Amino acid sequence: MDLQYPLELVGTLVFAISGALAVRDKEHDLFGAGFTGFITAIGGGTLRDVLLGSYPLVWIGDVNFLYAILLGVLAAFVFPRFLLKLRKTFFLFDTLGIGFFTVLGVEKALSLGVRPEIAAIMGMFTAVMGGVIRDTLVNQIPVLFSKEIYASACLTGAILYLLLDYLGLERDYNMLVSISVIISIRLVAVKYKLSLPRLD
Amino acid sequence: MDLQYPLELVGTLVFAISGALAVRDKEHDLFGAGFTGFITAIGGGTLRDVLLGSYPLVWIGDVNFLYAILLGVLAAFVFPRFLLKLRKTFFLFDTLGIGFFTVLGVEKALSLGVRPEIAAIMGMFTAVMGGVIRDTLVNQIPVLFSKEIYASACLTGAILYLLLDYLGLERDYNMLVSISVIISIRLVAVKYKLSLPRLD
Amino acid sequence: MDLQYPLELVGTLVFAISGALAVRDKEHDLFGAGFTGFITAIGGGTLRDVLLGSYPLVWIGDVNFLYAILLGVLAAFVFPRFLLKLRKTFFLFDTLGIGFFTVLGVEKALSLGVRPEIAAIMGMFTAVMGGVIRDTLVNQIPVLFSKEIYASACLTGAILYLLLDYLGLERDYNMLVSISVIISIRLVAVKYKLSLPRLD
Repeated sequence: MDLQYPLELVGTLVFAISGALAVRDKEHDLFGAGFTGFITAIGGGTLRDVLLGSYPLVWIGDVNFLYAILLGVLAAFVFPRFLLKLRKTFFLFDTLGIGFFTVLGVEKALSLGVRPEIAAIMGMFTAVMGGVIRDTLVNQIPVLFSKEIYASACLTGAILYLLLDYLGLERDYNMLVSISVIISIRLVAVKYKLSLPRLD
Repeated sequence: MDLQYPLELVGTLVFAISGALAVRDKEHDLFGAGFTGFITAIGGGTLRDVLLGSYPLVWIGDVNFLYAILLGVLAAFVFPRFLLKLRKTFFLFDTLGIGFFTVLGVEKALSLGVRPEIAAIMGMFTAVMGGVIRDTLVNQIPVLFSKEIYASACLTGAILYLLLDYLGLERDYNMLVSISVIISIRLVAVKYKLSLPRLD
Repeated sequence: MDLQYPLELVGTLVFAISGALAVRDKEHDLFGAGFTGFITAIGGGTLRDVLLGSYPLVWIGDVNFLYAILLGVLAAFVFPRFLLKLRKTFFLFDTLGIGFFTVLGVEKALSLGVRPEIAAIMGMFTAVMGGVIRDTLVNQIPVLFSKEIYASACLTGAILYLLLDYLGLERDYNMLVSISVIISIRLVAVKYKLSLPRLD
């Protein structure tokens, strides 16, 4: 899949934009917004690699990720109105992004020799923990704890990928299926306002 | 001490239950509660091992810890009322848990060759940092910063363990004494509502 | 520069004092204040070294940093009134501190072989992330996201240091110039209440 590397860069850029725009209504200056975009974009993969002890971290070993983030943050600064109008487009990009990064995270963890149970968690972490760290920094309860099905969609997709991999499905097809399932769960959950039950 | 490994698993399970139940009054769905239980259970040991550069992390190298957490979270989902009635029992388990994990954390740090001052901090971190990370994620000031003597009991027990170890007390006795001291300080502090003075 | 090591220790002590005093108006007990001082003092360098995979962490490999922190926290406990009267002096120390730690962070990162873009970020992280972690723990939006020019001064100084280094300026002069620029930007920003524009 020759598209993987450019897709990773585009996904990072999209996460950086949505991270920078997320703090627009908070008391953040330009630098704070840029910082938040940066954290959102690299947080999940960084946590995964620190937990797995995999060095150098992706964005430290390959400076292109830094430039993708810079580009995303600059775009959020220069065209905030335009980008906010694209809210729906962004929601789609974000949904594509979490599907894609979940599967990449699973694969990276497997390549480091951990068990599938751990790889599933790492896949989900890769997709959602950037947002969790961002929300914690801007002093909000991370949305994934309470909103529509989000991280649980990633976890489901990660487990599916591992299952299909175990059953011998070829990687490209497996990626396509698992990412599609994550996206579908997420879209259906948002459209029909489905959410997981609460305790009590 | 052949009991150590099963005790570690039970301690992890108890921490996972209390972490999942802790967010019952917040706006968390089932997934959020499970995630919070997970963080509470592994947070302290994970921070210790990342700070010490000790890989693989315990729960990544031994998947039984993951299953202990899963069991705890499921129990919190299925029997929340029953478990909340056991509040007092849980308080005892939690108190046992922080005593036990403090000493294990000290020993792990020492085994990695750090100085005793560092080992004392790592023992305390092992016991209390899971709760600190949990409280930060759910947007509360970590209780250990303000409530009854908690982390300071762990630090005291950790220093006592190191002292008795230095004086040549056999490990099993030392564990027993140090854990008992942590538990006693904690119980007395809660019973008599003792707390450390505040700045001003 | 034979002064570097003692300056690092003094800088750590000053950060510990300001961290412990920062929670004076919150509901923190003595232990919480000490803990906060500790996090403020070691947070930035620790994050840098964990991200770079550089072990042992500075304060774990050299216990003098721990004693500098202990001294700072004790000072904050014993002389809070006196130290708060020195607010202006502290502001100066803090400003000196962020300049100094920025440059040290850049140098450490470069010595580990990362690209200059990464070294600039690491320099800024070293100076400011202790405060960010502290603010997040005490449930505040990190001030650097919204207040006067702070982290951006560090980033500017870090980039300047890398530029002058590239141009062949001797290290001692480079340090002097870059630290002075960080301090100047910060002092001017505070004096004239300059801040970066906000999104929207």
